Amino acid sequence: MSTLEGDLEEQQQRNLRLRADFENFRRRAAREYAGARDEGRRAALLPLLSVFDTLERALAAGSIDPEFYEGVAATQRLFLRALREAGAEPIESVGRPFDPTAHEAIATVPAEGVPPGTVAQENRRGWRLGRDLLRPAQVVVATEPEPVD
Amino acid sequence: MSTLEGDLEEQQQRNLRLRADFENFRRRAAREYAGARDEGRRAALLPLLSVFDTLERALAAGSIDPEFYEGVAATQRLFLRALREAGAEPIESVGRPFDPTAHEAIATVPAEGVPPGTVAQENRRGWRLGRDLLRPAQVVVATEPEPVD
Repeated sequence: MSTLEGDLEEQQQRNLRLRADFENFRRRAAREYAGARDEGRRAALLPLLSVFDTLERALAAGSIDPEFYEGVAATQRLFLRALREAGAEPIESVGRPFDPTAHEAIATVPAEGVPPGTVAQENRRGWRLGRDLLRPAQVVVATEPEPVD
Repeated sequence: MSTLEGDLEEQQQRNLRLRADFENFRRRAAREYAGARDEGRRAALLPLLSVFDTLERALAAGSIDPEFYEGVAATQRLFLRALREAGAEPIESVGRPFDPTAHEAIATVPAEGVPPGTVAQENRRGWRLGRDLLRPAQVVVATEPEPVD
């Protein structure tokens, strides 16, 4: 094989490798772009979830001013809608089987009438962002009822 | 020039172009990655700004239940802190010169004692996200006072 033939082959091999590298980079860049968007949403939404919790607790306490109370309750409904519009979705927990990918068990309680391993109580609501977990729910999990002596 | 020499030169040219394209793509991908994070934050924050407005209006109306009112006012302060933590910053408008990059003029009003072109009133608060505008402020701009006959 002449030097020219060898050089040509080398250049062709380089070309193929470069194309493959480029294609891999393109795919990774597309994945990372989507990841960066979600990361931005997550960073913006996380601190706002505790604001939602606080407003919910305020509403749960009730008020002697029905007009003002209704204004705040309407704001809370708007808040939920805005969080959903931003991609966040509340997780249903109470009465569901404990799910370690969405729930954080903070205690257990012996419970009658529900299968052991069921979520008996929710102390903090969990949220998803698309398929990912934004914040786990903090829950109390049912265990076998204590035997009666 | 032999065919081999021509082929070799063509391959070398191709490789150079491919390298240049790859380098450009790499640079653009890095810029877009940074943009994607901001875009995610922007998409999450925008719908929440009107929730903040609504709660602010509810508070401005006042309440005959001081305890409940104070709970909601505390939530609003927490809300502002969470928006700031997420990167959003309210824009100061009233008393400042009209700035077309941050303000949207919805009306003018003849005003004494302030230079024409000053923001006289804010109807909707504006917000920045880092260096970018998240939402312009809607403002009323002062003009020369009407001449007295």
